Amino acid sequence: MEELSIAQALVVMGKAIGAGLCMGIGAIGPGIGEGNIGAHAMDSMARQPEMVGTITTRMLLADAVAESTGIYSLLVAFLILLTL
Amino acid sequence: MEELSIAQALVVMGKAIGAGLCMGIGAIGPGIGEGNIGAHAMDSMARQPEMVGTITTRMLLADAVAESTGIYSLLVAFLILLTL
Amino acid sequence: MEELSIAQALVVMGKAIGAGLCMGIGAIGPGIGEGNIGAHAMDSMARQPEMVGTITTRMLLADAVAESTGIYSLLVAFLILLTL
Amino acid sequence: MEELSIAQALVVMGKAIGAGLCMGIGAIGPGIGEGNIGAHAMDSMARQPEMVGTITTRMLLADAVAESTGIYSLLVAFLILLTL
Amino acid sequence: MEELSIAQALVVMGKAIGAGLCMGIGAIGPGIGEGNIGAHAMDSMARQPEMVGTITTRMLLADAVAESTGIYSLLVAFLILLTL
Amino acid sequence: MEELSIAQALVVMGKAIGAGLCMGIGAIGPGIGEGNIGAHAMDSMARQPEMVGTITTRMLLADAVAESTGIYSLLVAFLILLTL
Amino acid sequence: MEELSIAQALVVMGKAIGAGLCMGIGAIGPGIGEGNIGAHAMDSMARQPEMVGTITTRMLLADAVAESTGIYSLLVAFLILLTL
Amino acid sequence: MEELSIAQALVVMGKAIGAGLCMGIGAIGPGIGEGNIGAHAMDSMARQPEMVGTITTRMLLADAVAESTGIYSLLVAFLILLTL
Amino acid sequence: MEELSIAQALVVMGKAIGAGLCMGIGAIGPGIGEGNIGAHAMDSMARQPEMVGTITTRMLLADAVAESTGIYSLLVAFLILLTL
Amino acid sequence: MEELSIAQALVVMGKAIGAGLCMGIGAIGPGIGEGNIGAHAMDSMARQPEMVGTITTRMLLADAVAESTGIYSLLVAFLILLTL
Amino acid sequence: MEELSIAQALVVMGKAIGAGLCMGIGAIGPGIGEGNIGAHAMDSMARQPEMVGTITTRMLLADAVAESTGIYSLLVAFLILLTL
Amino acid sequence: MEELSIAQALVVMGKAIGAGLCMGIGAIGPGIGEGNIGAHAMDSMARQPEMVGTITTRMLLADAVAESTGIYSLLVAFLILLTL
Amino acid sequence: MEELSIAQALVVMGKAIGAGLCMGIGAIGPGIGEGNIGAHAMDSMARQPEMVGTITTRMLLADAVAESTGIYSLLVAFLILLTL
Amino acid sequence: MEELSIAQALVVMGKAIGAGLCMGIGAIGPGIGEGNIGAHAMDSMARQPEMVGTITTRMLLADAVAESTGIYSLLVAFLILLTL
Repeated sequence: MEELSIAQALVVMGKAIGAGLCMGIGAIGPGIGEGNIGAHAMDSMARQPEMVGTITTRMLLADAVAESTGIYSLLVAFLILLTL
Repeated sequence: MEELSIAQALVVMGKAIGAGLCMGIGAIGPGIGEGNIGAHAMDSMARQPEMVGTITTRMLLADAVAESTGIYSLLVAFLILLTL
Repeated sequence: MEELSIAQALVVMGKAIGAGLCMGIGAIGPGIGEGNIGAHAMDSMARQPEMVGTITTRMLLADAVAESTGIYSLLVAFLILLTL
Repeated sequence: MEELSIAQALVVMGKAIGAGLCMGIGAIGPGIGEGNIGAHAMDSMARQPEMVGTITTRMLLADAVAESTGIYSLLVAFLILLTL
Repeated sequence: MEELSIAQALVVMGKAIGAGLCMGIGAIGPGIGEGNIGAHAMDSMARQPEMVGTITTRMLLADAVAESTGIYSLLVAFLILLTL
Repeated sequence: MEELSIAQALVVMGKAIGAGLCMGIGAIGPGIGEGNIGAHAMDSMARQPEMVGTITTRMLLADAVAESTGIYSLLVAFLILLTL
Repeated sequence: MEELSIAQALVVMGKAIGAGLCMGIGAIGPGIGEGNIGAHAMDSMARQPEMVGTITTRMLLADAVAESTGIYSLLVAFLILLTL
Repeated sequence: MEELSIAQALVVMGKAIGAGLCMGIGAIGPGIGEGNIGAHAMDSMARQPEMVGTITTRMLLADAVAESTGIYSLLVAFLILLTL
Repeated sequence: MEELSIAQALVVMGKAIGAGLCMGIGAIGPGIGEGNIGAHAMDSMARQPEMVGTITTRMLLADAVAESTGIYSLLVAFLILLTL
Repeated sequence: MEELSIAQALVVMGKAIGAGLCMGIGAIGPGIGEGNIGAHAMDSMARQPEMVGTITTRMLLADAVAESTGIYSLLVAFLILLTL
Repeated sequence: MEELSIAQALVVMGKAIGAGLCMGIGAIGPGIGEGNIGAHAMDSMARQPEMVGTITTRMLLADAVAESTGIYSLLVAFLILLTL
Repeated sequence: MEELSIAQALVVMGKAIGAGLCMGIGAIGPGIGEGNIGAHAMDSMARQPEMVGTITTRMLLADAVAESTGIYSLLVAFLILLTL
Repeated sequence: MEELSIAQALVVMGKAIGAGLCMGIGAIGPGIGEGNIGAHAMDSMARQPEMVGTITTRMLLADAVAESTGIYSLLVAFLILLTL
Repeated sequence: MEELSIAQALVVMGKAIGAGLCMGIGAIGPGIGEGNIGAHAMDSMARQPEMVGTITTRMLLADAVAESTGIYSLLVAFLILLTL
C-alpha cells in the first residue's frame, strides 16, 4: 500500500463515508416509492386486463420520475468520490 | 495523491459528509412522495380508462412539484461541493 | 488547494454540515406532504372527471403552501453557506 | 478567506449547525400536516363539487395555522444566524 | 468579527444548538396535530355543508390549543437566546 | 460580551441544551394528542350537529388534561433556565 | 455570574440535561395516550348523546391513570434538579 | 454551591442522566398502553351503556397491570438517585 | 458528600446509566403489550357481557406472561445496582 | 466503597451497560409479541365462548415460544454480569 | 476484584457490549414475529374449532423457523462471551 | 486472564461489537418476515382446511428463502469472529 | 499481517465503514419495494389466473427499475473499496 | 494471540464493524420483503387452490429478485473482510 500522510488518510475517510451515506440513504426513498408504484400497477393490470400496455408505459414514466432523486444521489456520490 | 495540510483535509471531509447527507436524506421525501402519487395514478387509470392522458399529465405536474425539494437538495449539495 | 488555518477549516466544515442537514432534513416533510396531496388529487380526478381543471389548480395551491417550509429550508441553507 | 481565531470558528460552526437543525427539523411537521390538510381537501372537493370555493378558503385558513410553527422555526433560525 | 474567548464561543454554540433543537423538534407535534385537525375539518365540511361556519370556529379553537406547545417552544427558545 | 470562565460557559451550554431538549421533545406528545382529540371532535360535530356545544366543552376538557405534560415540560425548562 | 469550578459546572450540566430528558421524553407517552382516550370519548359522545356525563367522568378517570407516569417524570425531574 | 471534586461531579452527572433516562423512557410504554385501554373502554361504554360500572372497574384493573412497569421505572430511578 | 476516586465515580456512572437504560427501555414492550391486551379485553366484554368474569381472569393471565420481561428487566437492574 | 483501579471500573461500566442494554432492548420484542397474542386471544374467546379452555392453553403455548428470546436475553445478561 | 490491565478491561467491555447488543437487538424480530404467528393462530382456532390440533402443530412449526434467528443470536453471543 | 497489549484488546473489541451488531440487527428482518409468512399461513389453513399439507410445505419453502439473509448474517458473524 | 502506518489503517477503516454503510442501508429500499411488488403480483395472479404470464413479465420489469438504486449502491461500494 | 501494532488493530476493527453493519443492516430489507411476498402467496394459494404450482414458482421468482440486494450485501461484506 502506498505511503500516506494523516491528512491524506482523513480525505479518503471523509470521501468514503460521505459518498457511502449519500448513495446508501439516497436509495431508500426511490426503492420504496418505485415498489409502491409497481405494486399498484400489478393490481391495476389484474383489474383492467385490456390496459396492460397503457399501464406498463405509465408505470415506467412514473418510475422514471421517482428514480430521479436516486440518480441525483449517484451523481453527488460520484462528485464526492472522483472530483473533490 | 497531492500533499495536504490537516486543515485542507478537514475541509474535504466536511464538504463530502455535508453534501452526502444533504442529497442522501433529501432523496427520501421526494422518492416516497412521488411513489405515492404514481401509485394512486395507476389506480385511477384502471378505474377511469378514458382519462389516461389527463391523469398522466396531472401526475407529471404533481411530480414536478414534489420533485422540487429534491432539486433544492441537489443545488445545495453542488454549492457545498463546488463553491464553498 | 489554497492554504487554510484550522479555524478556517472548522468554519467550512460547520457551514457544509449545517447547510446539508438543513436542506436534507427539510426536504422530507414537503416531499411526503406534496406526495400525499398529489395522490389524493389523482383519486379525486378519477372520481369526478369533470372537475379536473378545478382540482388541478387547487392541488397546485395546496402544494404551494406545503412547499413553503422547503423554501424556508433552502433560504436558511443559502444564508448559512453564503452570508455567515 | 479572512483570518479567524478558533473561538470565532466555533461560533460559526455552532450557529450554522443550530440554525440548520432548527429549520430542517422544523420543516417536517408543517410539511406533513399541510399535506394532510390538502389531501383531505382534494377528497372533499370531489365529494361536494359545489363547495370548492368554501373548502379552498378553509384549507388556506387551516394551512395558515399549521404553517405557524414552521414560521417560528424560520424566525428562530434567523435570530440564531443574524443576531446572536 | 469581534474578538472572543473560547468560553464565550462555547456559550454561543450552546445557545444556538439548544434553541435550534428546542424550536425545531417542538414544531413537529403541533404541525402534525394541526394538520390532523384541519384534515378532519375538511371532511366534516363536505359531509355537513350547512355547518361550515361552526366547524371553522371550532377548528380554530382546537388549533389554538394544539398550537400552545409550539408557542411554549418558541418562548423557551427566546429565553435561551436572549436572556440566558 | 461579558468575560466568562470555561466553567461558566459549560453551565450555560448545559442549561441551554437541557431546557431546549426538555421543551422541544415535550411538545411532541401533547401536540399529536390534542390534534387527535380535535380531529375526532370535528368528526363528531358533523355527525351530531345539535351537540356542538357539548362536544366543544368536552374537547377543551380533554385538551386541558393532554396539555398537562406540555406544561410540566415548560415548568421544568423554566426551572432549568432560571433557578438552577 | 458567580465563580464556579469545573466540577460544579459539570454538576449543573448533568442535572439540566438529565432533568430535561426525563420530563421531555416522559411527556410523549401520556400526551399521546390521553389524546387517544379523548379522541375516542368524542366519538362515543356523538354516538350516545345521553351518556355525555358518564363518559366525561370515565374519560377523566382514565386520563388520571394515564397521567400518572407523566407525574412520576415530573417528580423525578424535581428530585434531580432540587435535591441531588 | 458546595465544593466538589471532579469524581463527585461525575457521580452526580451519572445519577441525574441515568435516573432521567430511566423514568423518561419508562413513561412511554405505560402512557401509550393505558391510553389504548382507556380509548377502547370509552368505545365499549358507548356500545353497552348498562355495563359502565363493570367496564370501569375492569379498565382500572387493566390499567393497574399496565402501570406496573412505570412504577418499576420510578423505583429504579429512586434507587439510582437516593441509595446508589 | 463522601470522598471518591475517579474509578469509583466511573463505577457509579456506569451502574446508574446501565440500570436506568435497562429498566427504562424494558418498560416499553410490556407497557404497550399489556395495553393491547387490556384494550381488546374491553371490547370483548362489551361484545359478550356474560363473559366478564372469564375474560377478566384470562386478561390477567395474559398480562402475567407479558409482564415477565418487565420483571426480568427489574431483576437485571437490581443486580446491576446492588450486587455488581 | 472499596478501592478500585481505573481498569476495574471500566469492567464494571462495560458489564452494567452491556447487561442493561441486553435485557432492556430484549424485552421489547416479547412484550409486544405476547401482547399481540393475548389481545387476539381475548377477541377469540368473545367470539367462541365455548372454546375458552382450549384457547387459554394455546395462548400460553404461543406465549411460551414468544417468551423464549426474552429468556435468552436474561440468560446472556446473567452471563455478562456474573461470569464474565 | 482481581487485578486487571487496561487492555484486559477493554476486552471485557467489548465482549459485554457486543454480546449484549447481539442478543438484545436479536430478540426483537423473533419476538414480534412469533407474536404475529400466535395472534393469527388464535383467530384461526376461533374460526375453525375443529382444527385446533392441526393449527397448534403448524403454529409450533412456524414458530420454530421464526425462532431460528433468535437462536443464532444466542449462539453468536455465547461465542463472543466464552470463546473470543 | 492472559496478558494482552492494547492493540490486541482493540481487535477483540472490534470483533465482538462487529459480530454482535451483524447478527443482532440481521435477526430483525427474517424474524419479522417469517412471522408474517406464518401468520398468513395460519389464516389460510383456517380458510381452506383441506390444503393444510400443501400450505405447510409452501410455508416452509417461503421461510427457507426469508431465512437466507439471517444465515448470511450468521456466516459473516462467524467469519468476523473466527477467521479475521 | 503486513506492516501498516496509522494513516494507512485509517484509510482501510474509512473504506470498510463507508462501503459497508452504503450497501447495507442501500439494500433496505429495494428489498422492501420489491417485496411490495411481488406481494401484489401474487394477489393479482390469484385474482386473474389467465394473466399469469403477463403479470410475471411486468413484475420483473417493475423489479428491474426498483432494483436500480440497489445496483447504484453496489457500484458506489465497489468504487469506494477498489478505486478510491 | 499474535503480536499486533495499533494500526493493524484499527484495520481489524474497521473491517469487523464495516462488514458487520453491511450484512446486518442489509438483511432487513430482503427479510421483510420476502416475508411480504410469502405471506401474500399463502393467501393466494388458499383463494385459488388449483394454482398452487404456478404461484409457488412465481413466489420463488419474486423472492430471487428481492434476495438480490441481500446477496450484494454479502458480497460487499466478503470484499471488506477478505480482500481489502
